Amino acid sequence: MADKLSEQALVAAVADSEWVTAGETLVLDREFADFASAWAFAEQVAALAETANHHPDILAHGWNKVRVTLSTHSAGGVTQLDVDLSRAIDALHGQ
Amino acid sequence: MADKLSEQALVAAVADSEWVTAGETLVLDREFADFASAWAFAEQVAALAETANHHPDILAHGWNKVRVTLSTHSAGGVTQLDVDLSRAIDALHGQ
Repeated sequence: MADKLSEQALVAAVADSEWVTAGETLVLDREFADFASAWAFAEQVAALAETANHHPDILAHGWNKVRVTLSTHSAGGVTQLDVDLSRAIDALHGQ
Repeated sequence: MADKLSEQALVAAVADSEWVTAGETLVLDREFADFASAWAFAEQVAALAETANHHPDILAHGWNKVRVTLSTHSAGGVTQLDVDLSRAIDALHGQ
């Protein structure tokens, strides 16, 4: 099972990324031109989550925004699983 | 533009439904067997939203749950647009 990352490892993991730490989670906020584009991104994140068998919270809100929240519930915080998924999301085509 | 519904109309609109009122919104919480089923529902809601050009907040969370939150921002509360979309969501095949 993945272990919760140290504060230091967490800071290093989000450095130079759009992700921020919020409590025991990693959070990404993205804004798009319209709902269709926002939802297309949400779908890509959901597909990656299924592939990784690791499921973030995905919120489509305000018609053009998406918030992705990553955490490993079994570890009570952010693990390497979350960092790996955050990087896969960052690598999505066109993001 | 759609007008905000009266408290009385709102109570009548959610009677005998899974929807609850929360502040100036209508909220539906659904739980599924797995992420794939939860996401399939979220996608159906998103498709209805695009068709209606009325966009609820859609949250996929806790790997198998979906929360849909309806409100009409321009009216500052729940309007007939929200009630109509809630009924379209209720009418989704297999729900």
